[in-house]
Amino acid sequence: MRAGPSQEDIRRHNLGALLRHVHLGGPISRAELTSRMGLNRSTIMALTSDLTAAGLVREELPRETGRAGRPSLVVRPESSRVYVFAFDVGPDRLVAARVGLGGVILDRRELPRRRGPFELPELVGALAGFARQMRRKTRPDTVCVGAAAAVAGGVRKGDGVITFGPNLMKPHQEVPFGEELGRRLGLGLPVSVGNDANLGALAEHSRGLGVSVKDLIYLHGDVGIGGGIIAGGHLLGGHDGYGGEVGHMVVNPGGRACGCGSHGCLEAEVGERALLEAAGRAKADQNGDAQQGKHGREAVRAVVDAADRGDIVAQEALKRVGDWLGLGVANLINIFNPEMVIFGGMLREIYLGSAARVRSQLTLHAMTPQRERLRLRTSALADDATLVGAAELAFAHVLADPLEVLARAGG
Amino acid sequence: MRAGPSQEDIRRHNLGALLRHVHLGGPISRAELTSRMGLNRSTIMALTSDLTAAGLVREELPRETGRAGRPSLVVRPESSRVYVFAFDVGPDRLVAARVGLGGVILDRRELPRRRGPFELPELVGALAGFARQMRRKTRPDTVCVGAAAAVAGGVRKGDGVITFGPNLMKPHQEVPFGEELGRRLGLGLPVSVGNDANLGALAEHSRGLGVSVKDLIYLHGDVGIGGGIIAGGHLLGGHDGYGGEVGHMVVNPGGRACGCGSHGCLEAEVGERALLEAAGRAKADQNGDAQQGKHGREAVRAVVDAADRGDIVAQEALKRVGDWLGLGVANLINIFNPEMVIFGGMLREIYLGSAARVRSQLTLHAMTPQRERLRLRTSALADDATLVGAAELAFAHVLADPLEVLARAGG
Repeated sequence: MRAGPSQEDIRRHNLGALLRHVHLGGPISRAELTSRMGLNRSTIMALTSDLTAAGLVREELPRETGRAGRPSLVVRPESSRVYVFAFDVGPDRLVAARVGLGGVILDRRELPRRRGPFELPELVGALAGFARQMRRKTRPDTVCVGAAAAVAGGVRKGDGVITFGPNLMKPHQEVPFGEELGRRLGLGLPVSVGNDANLGALAEHSRGLGVSVKDLIYLHGDVGIGGGIIAGGHLLGGHDGYGGEVGHMVVNPGGRACGCGSHGCLEAEVGERALLEAAGRAKADQNGDAQQGKHGREAVRAVVDAADRGDIVAQEALKRVGDWLGLGVANLINIFNPEMVIFGGMLREIYLGSAARVRSQLTLHAMTPQRERLRLRTSALADDATLVGAAELAFAHVLADPLEVLARAGG
Repeated sequence: MRAGPSQEDIRRHNLGALLRHVHLGGPISRAELTSRMGLNRSTIMALTSDLTAAGLVREELPRETGRAGRPSLVVRPESSRVYVFAFDVGPDRLVAARVGLGGVILDRRELPRRRGPFELPELVGALAGFARQMRRKTRPDTVCVGAAAAVAGGVRKGDGVITFGPNLMKPHQEVPFGEELGRRLGLGLPVSVGNDANLGALAEHSRGLGVSVKDLIYLHGDVGIGGGIIAGGHLLGGHDGYGGEVGHMVVNPGGRACGCGSHGCLEAEVGERALLEAAGRAKADQNGDAQQGKHGREAVRAVVDAADRGDIVAQEALKRVGDWLGLGVANLINIFNPEMVIFGGMLREIYLGSAARVRSQLTLHAMTPQRERLRLRTSALADDATLVGAAELAFAHVLADPLEVLARAGG
């Protein structure tokens, strides 16, 4: 309920909006920007000049259009010059990437990790080491404008502290991950941190299946089950930043024990361990090596493949897990009335292997008006959804205020 | 990603913001408005002049302030002149009220209704009759600026059609309630329609316990269980308008049959029927007269009172219902990470009678970081929460664009 925006606010808003068009939509002509943004040609020209001077975009003549008249200049993101570091900390792997403006993954490093609680110095040391390696390979005129990480845990709003993560940390720890990683990177930039499923939802909403979908649920499977929810076009953050922890919705009271201390959570009934145990393929030891086929994404795929080949035990395991997944999704449909539900991580395999069971649970438990227009999909960004979301989080402040970047770049 | 706002947009925004201050906060001095809205004195003066000319507010000298200097004029809503009609259609009663700008209930009518499906002509006839009675008693210079209704059912976004309501309608009906009521009112005004629990949430967020709370869940008990969710300061609407139907979250798979066709829904385990049956006080006939003590709010109160007096059957019934309520609330806490959960309608009585059980379920099933700062409350607006929400919905377009009202009033 404050006053209207100042001229400076409007200019910043328009610069951010233009840069967002180029960043998310790719190269675009000035004429098209004029039409899409509802601004006049001279304003668009002034805005692109400012962004060009700051080195965020460049303007080029288009290729032959075959049409008469002077062609409109095409505005492109400076993808190879302006970049962010994006990190993904999962139970089974660490990923670091250098991502250019426009969303291009320019370079990446990946390391399998042993399951179990991490040691903070080792973890941030490994990630910062990757960043240094990638940075050494860049040209001198490149500029890093941000950094962010996705983690398989709960991240407190504001300070990037991880406060829970049954598949990453010991219980009752508070880990100042963002602050520590920022220090080790030594770039003079703060590191934003987000829950992996929340960032997966953001990625699908920005660059995946959920572009222009205002109400979507992204479910991420990776040992546990996480959720990211876009409601009315905005990520559901919650009061402290823990919104979307749908993996700890109890679907089976008195059911399987969950790492969170409760029983019968969606994660306990649908997660990797539930599937592998039902399929007779799990070891009691959860902290063993991440050998292929023993657990992890490969082990989940193996169950789905076996079921496809007619293995009855694998089929029964998928039915059981699919029924609980369907019940959980039905609940979420009733609660959120989403337009789309996207299955990501290892839930892609589980959903594909149990879609009929999931759908029959929806028929039983989701209300008709809520499910009539619903679409169920598997992630278009595959194993990179959470990493892509981290990159978008890192770019967010540049898009919100390119002027600040202009100032830093002396523009 | 459109251009910045025009001068006209800014004026409309500021007029709406000023009117909202007066409508929600009550009489306020120009000096205070200047400070709260971050605008200069002459702008505030111009805005209040426009709103005064339109008859939406009036300015008065304050009472003795005891301070030296010229006192700042106080801006008051024209509560007795500018009003809306608000309606509440519940399973057991119909309510109609004339609500003045500023949220004052100026007049009201209430009628108990027999349970069971309604007939649309009778229903809108009764409501329109109430409105006519109340209108006849108004002074000639009063003006009706809107109308809205809360209904215990699902309302499709955009057209005010009720598409489900197990406690109001036959299954598989689509009832054009808003359109029909608008026609019968004959005021030349559209009637906005909302789900009762959604409007209860809006009311608590505007005028109840949830003012300044950006993440809250309002749970409404009235035969069934409804939910309204404010996430990040906005009502969760969902893709088709059915967001917040938490009563049909399955908490007890294979449990009690629910009116929606599923089993073990929160509504089936916690609703009025579950409590009365567990307490040995329910008749099989659900469509009997709404006699006091047989069912309805009074019957629920009687169980809680009996439990307080030591009736063991009533105590056991409340424990059972409290356990399921607690499990449902734990799930919602994990999913939404709200700052506050508000129990409304007959859930006020049930929560007060089973708070210890509810809390122990939260300890078992809600994650620690999500519940550490959570507040559980009973509705401050009591039986009027849904009606007050309907009034706020009716005022919404006036607050969004007082200029339109100005134009209609010839200002």
